[in-house]
Amino acid sequence: MVHIIGWGHTRFGKLADQGLEELIVAAGQEALAHSGVAAADIDAIYVGHFNGGMVGEGFPASLALGIHKDLRFTPATRLENACASGSAAVYAARDAIDAGRARVTLVIGAEKMTHLPTSEVAKGLGHASYQPEEAGLSFPQVFAMFARAYFDKWGDKSHVLAEIAAKNHANAMNNPLAQLHKALPVEFCAEVSEKNPIVADPLKVTDCSLVSDGAAAVVLASDDVAKTAARAVHMRASVQVNDFLPMSARNVAAFEGPKRAIAGALRAAGMGLSDLDLAEVHDCFTIAELMIYEAMGLAEPGQGERVLADGTVRPGGALPINMSGGLKAKGHPVGATGVSMHTLVARQVMGEADDMQVAGATKGLVFNMGGSGVANYATVLERVK
Amino acid sequence: MVHIIGWGHTRFGKLADQGLEELIVAAGQEALAHSGVAAADIDAIYVGHFNGGMVGEGFPASLALGIHKDLRFTPATRLENACASGSAAVYAARDAIDAGRARVTLVIGAEKMTHLPTSEVAKGLGHASYQPEEAGLSFPQVFAMFARAYFDKWGDKSHVLAEIAAKNHANAMNNPLAQLHKALPVEFCAEVSEKNPIVADPLKVTDCSLVSDGAAAVVLASDDVAKTAARAVHMRASVQVNDFLPMSARNVAAFEGPKRAIAGALRAAGMGLSDLDLAEVHDCFTIAELMIYEAMGLAEPGQGERVLADGTVRPGGALPINMSGGLKAKGHPVGATGVSMHTLVARQVMGEADDMQVAGATKGLVFNMGGSGVANYATVLERVK
Repeated sequence: MVHIIGWGHTRFGKLADQGLEELIVAAGQEALAHSGVAAADIDAIYVGHFNGGMVGEGFPASLALGIHKDLRFTPATRLENACASGSAAVYAARDAIDAGRARVTLVIGAEKMTHLPTSEVAKGLGHASYQPEEAGLSFPQVFAMFARAYFDKWGDKSHVLAEIAAKNHANAMNNPLAQLHKALPVEFCAEVSEKNPIVADPLKVTDCSLVSDGAAAVVLASDDVAKTAARAVHMRASVQVNDFLPMSARNVAAFEGPKRAIAGALRAAGMGLSDLDLAEVHDCFTIAELMIYEAMGLAEPGQGERVLADGTVRPGGALPINMSGGLKAKGHPVGATGVSMHTLVARQVMGEADDMQVAGATKGLVFNMGGSGVANYATVLERVK
Repeated sequence: MVHIIGWGHTRFGKLADQGLEELIVAAGQEALAHSGVAAADIDAIYVGHFNGGMVGEGFPASLALGIHKDLRFTPATRLENACASGSAAVYAARDAIDAGRARVTLVIGAEKMTHLPTSEVAKGLGHASYQPEEAGLSFPQVFAMFARAYFDKWGDKSHVLAEIAAKNHANAMNNPLAQLHKALPVEFCAEVSEKNPIVADPLKVTDCSLVSDGAAAVVLASDDVAKTAARAVHMRASVQVNDFLPMSARNVAAFEGPKRAIAGALRAAGMGLSDLDLAEVHDCFTIAELMIYEAMGLAEPGQGERVLADGTVRPGGALPINMSGGLKAKGHPVGATGVSMHTLVARQVMGEADDMQVAGATKGLVFNMGGSGVANYATVLERVK
């Protein structure tokens, strides 16, 4: 069994004074301090980082040794699975513990993006697409295809996407680490305007996640270490599912990878959705969050809007989703995102989520995705003590 | 326990018709066929790939699903640790098996480099250096610093480096997959000439490994699967040691990371050097191979040349090194290299190394390195059946 016993998280946003190295060090130092583990007791380090040419650091794993001098000679490895690179690092660290190779591991996810003009960020993220067929497509264009496929089948749901944007912006007001602290009315999100133009039809600015710098970290530990830790959150289930990279090889509307990962994690945990107290899911675009409601089984295909209408996924609902503000308003430093999600659900189930807290939460779901449903990671976290 | 039960290996060199995807698919298909494992029985895939901006595929893990349609929905993850990315993938796959999460894993290392002009390759590889201090240095310049530090302490050993180059070029004559099949006389390697100019003083062209395209793959399996496999090579010990990335934070002449990794692997295997029948080591530059002799403990500091003079590391010697031709003559598609080394030592200990075969070999060492002694992986492989 593997447990989260501590975490760290920088503010997400435009962090002009911090490069990739400073972000890794800041989040890692905070997580070490929070876990109460000495650097000398870390058996292995895992760094989640996408890169895509956005920064020059093509070999970042050993930068994490800068967290503390006692980390010298500790194995350090970089994991990449596009926007799920953070979860890839968490899962590799989990395996090292389950293999008996490590008792305590440090996982850091980090990305630096805001130093680049938007066109360069789009180019960098574009490296996560299938190059022979999709190299010219930006990610907003990719998810616009998902939205059009959804709208073609179920009708124009632009107003539903606006509800998701407004919910996540409102939630982020309670997250001091979020990039944006600006509640946006549904009406603003629903209307094309000078301040909310179309990015890729039908997606508007308010339908897209942010360009962000940031890092997050978790300390994972084996049973024996977790026993004496101040807190322990059990990784009760963790399932990774990859799908073909080319969109032409998949039915984009089916979202099969996300579906299988989430169902697999719930099955492995022996739980149903009703056992979960909250979820942090990969709302890289509002259409993704809508499709994830359905992939989770919260709503039938085409009916995702119902869980917004009945309040299920809102604060106080049966399964609040993205209490942190999500990628939409918290920010999306791509390599950090998966680790950030694990820290946020861990805080919730420990009752340490401050103003974001879901009352009485003990079990939560992380769903982190790389590409358009290509690399899919679903984790069920549960409070132990 | 984890075993290698099959492998694949493309030719290394200028493979104009194959991009990164084709290389991954070719090596992976060959390894599956060689292992006799059905694609549907692969539990997880690990891809070692550096990238450094040399190709547009910034999210390559799922490209491996193209090896066979039955791999759809199989977890696939990319590992990066510069020129040790291949070993990083092998070690992550090993952990998945030891964790009980997988019974059979497919590991592929791949890199595509020769489509770029040399200056662009140098720039790409330069992303593996510590950017704030070393961004302007090429890797030949980095290892030239190692050579100058060595020469300052022990005298000019250019003739020794020439012996290493000539040995590895001669060895590659027996490796049909090697990039270069051209025996070079020691005299040619020792002299600065029009055809063998200085690249970074004191390193000449013949002191540097090659720019290469290529991929290699291994199938790893748990005990129960290995029992019924046609062949099984036990990963008897495998140790990773990372050092600080900045050269300014290390004594470059000490090569502490390589030393600790190799000593750790031998200790874990309960072996001494005399138990090994051969080794494949990371001769990215001839000076690296010389320093690795000493890091292994084959010779005292400054005395590495002795094991060349007495024949120890030559074919027929007590511990032949780089029977494949090494990175020097086999080629060095950086993400593929670590996996390639594991396939080559596995072939040797199975008695399946054809013209490269070390007679009666049953135990061998892999030493793969990322950066200048930054990411260090040492594996002891042993024949089981």
